[in-house]
Amino acid sequence: MEGFNIDYIEIIGLIAAVLTTTAFLPQAYKTWKTKDVSSLSLTMLLIFFIGILFWLAYGILEKSLSMILANSITIISSFLLVYFKIKYGKQS
Amino acid sequence: MEGFNIDYIEIIGLIAAVLTTTAFLPQAYKTWKTKDVSSLSLTMLLIFFIGILFWLAYGILEKSLSMILANSITIISSFLLVYFKIKYGKQS
Repeated sequence: MEGFNIDYIEIIGLIAAVLTTTAFLPQAYKTWKTKDVSSLSLTMLLIFFIGILFWLAYGILEKSLSMILANSITIISSFLLVYFKIKYGKQS
Repeated sequence: MEGFNIDYIEIIGLIAAVLTTTAFLPQAYKTWKTKDVSSLSLTMLLIFFIGILFWLAYGILEKSLSMILANSITIISSFLLVYFKIKYGKQS
């Protein structure tokens, strides 16, 4: 990809990206299915979401393909968790 | 720090590191206090743990201070969650 250097370091990063995003997606799916947000803290979710925004900015500035991919997917998952917490949290 | 270049990009990374590790630590603390591991999947915890190992390797190879700091702390939290899951999971 233009502007990105795929060497063995980037392959390690891409493996890391796949593993941590794979591990995180089921939590969003589980929360969507069960609508159980009791064990999730809104403050923690918001801190995490903002943290991922900063990681994404860092990845873009460092031109790290692994970080851009991983954090783009994780930002969607964590946004969904914040949304579910606000939506389903009100019902209980 | 020798070998590390602290510029505005690295400051963004350090903010990201503080935010995401701050958000993750309470989960380990909560699990330790409640001993409730029912909602945690061992497979997902192991995938996450191995993923963080790869992120740490990537951070070291890329000489990214932010990634080394964040992933060193998160590796401890995620190791503890795997340990709690194995220890407390057997009791129930």
